[in-house]
Amino acid sequence: MSNENGAGAPNPGLVFEMLQAHQRTAALKAAIDLDIFTAVGDGPGDVASIAKHCAASERGIRILCDFLVINGVLAKEDGRYLHTPTSAVFLDPRSPASLASVAQFLGNPALQEPYNNLAELVRAGRTTLPGDGTVEPENPVWVLFAETMAPMMGPMAGPLGAVVLDGHEGPMHVLDIAAGHGLFGIEIAKQHPEARVTGQDWAPVLQVALKNAEKAGVHERYNMLPGSAFDVDFGGPYDAVLLTNFLHHFDAPTCVALLKKVHGALKPGGKAATLEFVPNEDRVSPPMPAAFAMTMLVSTPAGDAYTLSELTAMYEDAGFGSVTGHPIPMSPHTVVMGVA
Amino acid sequence: MSNENGAGAPNPGLVFEMLQAHQRTAALKAAIDLDIFTAVGDGPGDVASIAKHCAASERGIRILCDFLVINGVLAKEDGRYLHTPTSAVFLDPRSPASLASVAQFLGNPALQEPYNNLAELVRAGRTTLPGDGTVEPENPVWVLFAETMAPMMGPMAGPLGAVVLDGHEGPMHVLDIAAGHGLFGIEIAKQHPEARVTGQDWAPVLQVALKNAEKAGVHERYNMLPGSAFDVDFGGPYDAVLLTNFLHHFDAPTCVALLKKVHGALKPGGKAATLEFVPNEDRVSPPMPAAFAMTMLVSTPAGDAYTLSELTAMYEDAGFGSVTGHPIPMSPHTVVMGVA
Repeated sequence: MSNENGAGAPNPGLVFEMLQAHQRTAALKAAIDLDIFTAVGDGPGDVASIAKHCAASERGIRILCDFLVINGVLAKEDGRYLHTPTSAVFLDPRSPASLASVAQFLGNPALQEPYNNLAELVRAGRTTLPGDGTVEPENPVWVLFAETMAPMMGPMAGPLGAVVLDGHEGPMHVLDIAAGHGLFGIEIAKQHPEARVTGQDWAPVLQVALKNAEKAGVHERYNMLPGSAFDVDFGGPYDAVLLTNFLHHFDAPTCVALLKKVHGALKPGGKAATLEFVPNEDRVSPPMPAAFAMTMLVSTPAGDAYTLSELTAMYEDAGFGSVTGHPIPMSPHTVVMGVA
Repeated sequence: MSNENGAGAPNPGLVFEMLQAHQRTAALKAAIDLDIFTAVGDGPGDVASIAKHCAASERGIRILCDFLVINGVLAKEDGRYLHTPTSAVFLDPRSPASLASVAQFLGNPALQEPYNNLAELVRAGRTTLPGDGTVEPENPVWVLFAETMAPMMGPMAGPLGAVVLDGHEGPMHVLDIAAGHGLFGIEIAKQHPEARVTGQDWAPVLQVALKNAEKAGVHERYNMLPGSAFDVDFGGPYDAVLLTNFLHHFDAPTCVALLKKVHGALKPGGKAATLEFVPNEDRVSPPMPAAFAMTMLVSTPAGDAYTLSELTAMYEDAGFGSVTGHPIPMSPHTVVMGVA
């Protein structure tokens, strides 16, 4: 997507390209499902070898691989397919930075189905998924999120941890609300040996977080608080609370109520740090954080991609001061922090 | 889509953007269905006015319109939405060049459904639609094509007609195979008052072509030949045969057989002109014609986007000489012509 397309001469190609854009999602998902990026990494990269590895037809593989080349996630030289820098790092399953599992969450048929009748959804103004959509209590989609989205969220953990730990010395107790895969709290524990972390989420989701804490060797400083963030007693008081990828699911009054509860669980001077897609005040830039509002329209009753002024107002209504935004470089995410 | 994305530094944004690209198709289709582009053209362009026109929620309209701005098919100034040059010309239903109806064909749920399991389709190597997919005899999708795709194909009719008529004087009889909306044959009749045109297609499709011939005032020189191009007696001999958007649905032997039949229906020196998506010999450029192979994989048993060398070989195998390619400027289409 590109805002520049809006200016300049009328361009019918932009309309056709948008009407066909769904092919790109289907093609990348199919390529991941068929294990094409492993086959290309193995070489020699001719159609017959890839088709054999994928147990697929040569016609299908040739047309799919050409389509991936057109879209920049494979290259082609002398009729053979090879990795681009992007596919080598982010799509070959053997790369430590592989994002292939992310397709299982973003491409989840249940989450995609509402797009088949988006007009109806826009009329209604809220998710057409059962109940409250992705914010329905105990929705199993969050286990899938925890299991698959770590490669997308992992790179944000270091910068978030640095913002939260900045200026802190000595023992520290951190509450990680809606912990999911747990990587954000775990990162704090890794960066700061005197930190204890309490992960809060639905019980089956916390099992994923606990496994990640064990892998990171910080499980002895990792506690679990299962249940709904709105209902469970947070305990505390904490030195810091993490609220990552959470506020965008709810309307502003719900966010303020939760932030008040967070404020009550913090020590004076304690920090509440959210990780959010934060568009500019125009709500149409930068493209990725601004477009995230569509995902919230489709999957929740009243969620949104909130601007920094909206998030600041929520924090202040909940009693926080010194609210600051910290965009994470080379990412669509921003850390927004308030002090209790 | 952009080939340039393949080079340079690894870019995880490209992977996320592709995994979410289906949102862009859904958003444009919803906006057309909701009549948003009429509402924006009417002004004043605030969320409440557009929501009222579209009988839709303000939350839904605001998020959808922001998404359209992000994607270059609306603009936003001081919180109000207005047309971009592209949306004014190609998406406002009152524009004579509006492409809104094209979304009904390209966004047709039956044609989109196979993308939900593209991996399975790549394994099989052919359409998973019933029978032979879009080339199943009497498939009603071709009535929809004839009724909706004229705005996409109309701009190609002038250039195609010019290529076919170049150097011709006097009476002329033209056969328009797979006529669809009929615009290509009709354009010949409009450009050349001594031309008579015979439209060939399934009978219900020809009713659409006939209506277009009446609108153009050329119906007294327009005859109809209903049935399958493979089975019907073409009659003739003709001075020219048009074969538009047709060969790509079939494998090369089937194309050669049809071209032989066409050759037999032409006067010596007569011309056969196809309109095709013709990628370069690398099959991955230019993006639009090359990507068209994906549509043929998904919707046909053995169709393809053929290169000029492949089409030339088919023509020559069928007895044609002097085969030439004529790319239509500012379009993804090429006229390929052979002389009988």
